[in-house]
Amino acid sequence: MNYIAKPVGSFYKDSACEFVVWAPQREQVSLIINDKTYPLRKDDLGYWSATIKEAGPGTQYKYQLDGDKILPDPASRAQTQGVHGPSSVVDPEFNWNDSDWMGIPLGEMIMYELHVGTFTKEGTFASIIPKLPYLKDLGVNAIELMPVAQFPGSRNWGYDGVYPFAVQDSYGGVKGLKELVNECHRQGIAVVQDVVYNHLGPEGNYLSEYGPYFTDKYKTNWGKAINYDDAWCDGVRSYYWQNALMWLDEFHIDGLRLDAVHAIWDVSSKHFIDELRMKVRQLEQETGRKKVLIAEFDLNNPRYISSPEKGGYGLDGQWVDEFHHALRSLITEDYSGYYEDFGTAKHLAKAFKDSYVYTGEYSKHRKKFFGSYPETNTFDQFVVFSQNHDQVGNRMLGDRLTHNISYEALKLAAAAVILSPYVPMLFMGEEYGEKNPFQYFISHTDKELVELVRKGRKEEFSYFKWEGEVPDPQGEETFKQCILSWNYEKDEKSNTLLSFYKRLISIRKGSRALQNKQRQSLNILFVDDATKVI
Amino acid sequence: MNYIAKPVGSFYKDSACEFVVWAPQREQVSLIINDKTYPLRKDDLGYWSATIKEAGPGTQYKYQLDGDKILPDPASRAQTQGVHGPSSVVDPEFNWNDSDWMGIPLGEMIMYELHVGTFTKEGTFASIIPKLPYLKDLGVNAIELMPVAQFPGSRNWGYDGVYPFAVQDSYGGVKGLKELVNECHRQGIAVVQDVVYNHLGPEGNYLSEYGPYFTDKYKTNWGKAINYDDAWCDGVRSYYWQNALMWLDEFHIDGLRLDAVHAIWDVSSKHFIDELRMKVRQLEQETGRKKVLIAEFDLNNPRYISSPEKGGYGLDGQWVDEFHHALRSLITEDYSGYYEDFGTAKHLAKAFKDSYVYTGEYSKHRKKFFGSYPETNTFDQFVVFSQNHDQVGNRMLGDRLTHNISYEALKLAAAAVILSPYVPMLFMGEEYGEKNPFQYFISHTDKELVELVRKGRKEEFSYFKWEGEVPDPQGEETFKQCILSWNYEKDEKSNTLLSFYKRLISIRKGSRALQNKQRQSLNILFVDDATKVI
Repeated sequence: MNYIAKPVGSFYKDSACEFVVWAPQREQVSLIINDKTYPLRKDDLGYWSATIKEAGPGTQYKYQLDGDKILPDPASRAQTQGVHGPSSVVDPEFNWNDSDWMGIPLGEMIMYELHVGTFTKEGTFASIIPKLPYLKDLGVNAIELMPVAQFPGSRNWGYDGVYPFAVQDSYGGVKGLKELVNECHRQGIAVVQDVVYNHLGPEGNYLSEYGPYFTDKYKTNWGKAINYDDAWCDGVRSYYWQNALMWLDEFHIDGLRLDAVHAIWDVSSKHFIDELRMKVRQLEQETGRKKVLIAEFDLNNPRYISSPEKGGYGLDGQWVDEFHHALRSLITEDYSGYYEDFGTAKHLAKAFKDSYVYTGEYSKHRKKFFGSYPETNTFDQFVVFSQNHDQVGNRMLGDRLTHNISYEALKLAAAAVILSPYVPMLFMGEEYGEKNPFQYFISHTDKELVELVRKGRKEEFSYFKWEGEVPDPQGEETFKQCILSWNYEKDEKSNTLLSFYKRLISIRKGSRALQNKQRQSLNILFVDDATKVI
Repeated sequence: MNYIAKPVGSFYKDSACEFVVWAPQREQVSLIINDKTYPLRKDDLGYWSATIKEAGPGTQYKYQLDGDKILPDPASRAQTQGVHGPSSVVDPEFNWNDSDWMGIPLGEMIMYELHVGTFTKEGTFASIIPKLPYLKDLGVNAIELMPVAQFPGSRNWGYDGVYPFAVQDSYGGVKGLKELVNECHRQGIAVVQDVVYNHLGPEGNYLSEYGPYFTDKYKTNWGKAINYDDAWCDGVRSYYWQNALMWLDEFHIDGLRLDAVHAIWDVSSKHFIDELRMKVRQLEQETGRKKVLIAEFDLNNPRYISSPEKGGYGLDGQWVDEFHHALRSLITEDYSGYYEDFGTAKHLAKAFKDSYVYTGEYSKHRKKFFGSYPETNTFDQFVVFSQNHDQVGNRMLGDRLTHNISYEALKLAAAAVILSPYVPMLFMGEEYGEKNPFQYFISHTDKELVELVRKGRKEEFSYFKWEGEVPDPQGEETFKQCILSWNYEKDEKSNTLLSFYKRLISIRKGSRALQNKQRQSLNILFVDDATKVI
């Protein structure tokens, strides 16, 4: 048997719609549209399908499993009535006018992470478009969208998504995202999409009804581990690499930021991340457009970003949290929680020189020797930041660096990131010293779940010596407080900071020295810990 | 802090004994000898130690943890009163006379797997020595001992060992094993030791009282997974690589067969298997003796045996069960259980040509596409067999191939293994068609555990369509039935088979063609399935 992974979802084309759903252990799967039932046919690999003439764009549908439960499509492209409602057939037509766009290599990106829901008051894709000239003027050439896969309710960071193929309806859905990407490309801005392939959110997650999407072999911090290597894993693997190709191909997205790949457990002879990279490289060849793959992981293991010839998984790059920790603990003098492993100028010098701070040294916090030196990896494989959604939002009060350090220190932090040999990433608003926090927020409908999240947040901060009350994650006010103020124009300091950021980015772009990516080409002159001069 | 892993155990030298035990989370650890208590001192990494003048070889000792439980040493070298009794200081002196011995590379080995307890009536190391001329005459130049680490009772395959550093007392302990190795080397025979680094047995396992040896992150089929990558893992990792070096250095053992390495879970940037290989290669350099590392694993993942330059873990070789399955299912026409993935001449031809049968094809039994092609690996990295302890002993009745196929087919199986391009391994007694079975046996003292094992064995066979009663694993008779009969002299057919094995081995040794290890140099002419000609 050859492996023909069927594209999953509903595909409208030539006045008919093909419905494909993977449910390998089910005996009977039917499609339900307006109380009418259509039987599906199963193939050898467990894909059920049928082509239905009368189902045009906008058609609402569900599947019935073994004559019992009636559920939305795991590969739904739209959930216009939320995560528990029916799935929708979408219109594949879109007038792209970015045919000249070729993408941007990671090493040339000036990244800007943003959360669609709080970037503007409207919280939509459409409302980002008027801000693009501002970003362009700032010098940013790549925006990174926090996850936009359909999540429960309208307030969520996105990591609780339960329909990896559906674009969050409250943000503007499929059409809204395509319009944003199209306009970004027209203005010379790349779009990187944050995607979550290590878990699904807790509410509206019906995947296990359809098939063995999850496994008990491993544990994750956020729920059941996804089945990448156990019996029936191929349907799951192809579900996720199809998802990657959907963003990169159908939506013209320029790159993916793969959330917490250390929680993608896979002992197959070909790791899922390696397989994903191969599929994406193939797409690059077909389209002639650069597609960037960036991993987030907490392993200090260069294998993920090393070349396949050296046994690596060949990703373009990775986030490097340790740079942040070294920088932040040094300038804030906060040594609580996991910052206990950082805090001296030596740590920051190591972050500048070796990309990882821990390359085999003993970590007090982890209680083990940790990490390997990324000897063969170039500087432009590492994305650095002084703030990001996690490092701000996972503080108890979601307080930004603006609240923690002096105005002059803010400039220092900006320079450390932007003039580093790495790929700099800003977190929305930091460039003008936004004072509104970025807190953790949800809008689940399951009350028990809400209580669990509230409890979990409180426990999460027990490590740190932070004072005060944890904001209610479910509260609408918590969300509203996080919307960017955009008040830089009224505030002189904000305005000056913004100009400073622009100047730094412009220096970076103009300096050839800062574009030298070879590890051997950099010398760090470490003076001493007391004066904190590097 | 630099990592100085202390050698763990008790070391008698210059009329004093140094005691070292790792217990990083304990507040107080004392040594107890003859009701006398000696306090130990703790270092930064959690190693407790003291040097005691009056403790000579034979001294029995235990440790007391935080003034409470009194337990044997996890790195005990001898348990003369069984797994629950005190540990013993051993005499390090031994008159080796194998200084000319340089070891044998894996590719030149003709291996012979044996279980010490049933190889002879006496069931000891000493009783193997008189059989060495027989093995030499057969053509064997490497014996592989099933695990000899101290296990509960006197009847066990060895995979229930709970003192990785102690040599099973009923087999003859430290001295018995050294004498066997010394004599093997004198007669030109290498000794490979089977070691279990993926779990500990269920009875007499006190390790978790001492430290975080185990982790809940992963699951194994045989009990708690060993902590190779979580907090405090360094003490565990060094415990096991020290163990490897003990066998290879102190006992002059020539190689290790690493049991089920797929159950050694480790996401560190340096996998434990990779670290172990580095330690062993260093020992090779220091001693000038070849040390062979062979892994057992069920992943068809060449990474374990590929070169470190290609991102591999660099082991010398591996067992390849799929060769066995392809051969066995073809000649026995047994397609039950996991044999459903095999059974045609095509499968066997694939095993001959590609080393793995599954190099990316769909496996019906595993319900997934499985394996990768070991393109860069040479033939002499794969150990093959038509029988071994698992393939015989994990049949319900422990019935050998002798019981399942005709006399002529036995010869065919022997030729398939011995004239293969791989490293052949015989299972004790197969060379003369031993008719005594090799069943599963234990001698636990914990009654509940015995019941669990009995139940487990019954369940294990539900996949297969085997008839009859499962022999009682705890019964002494079950064990006794497995002792080799050695009756080849009285039986003409046995005698002829033995001669046939000798002749095959001699042909293998004499043929240059069979010593060509390059993958590109072999052609398999597959004729067709119906005639079963390859």
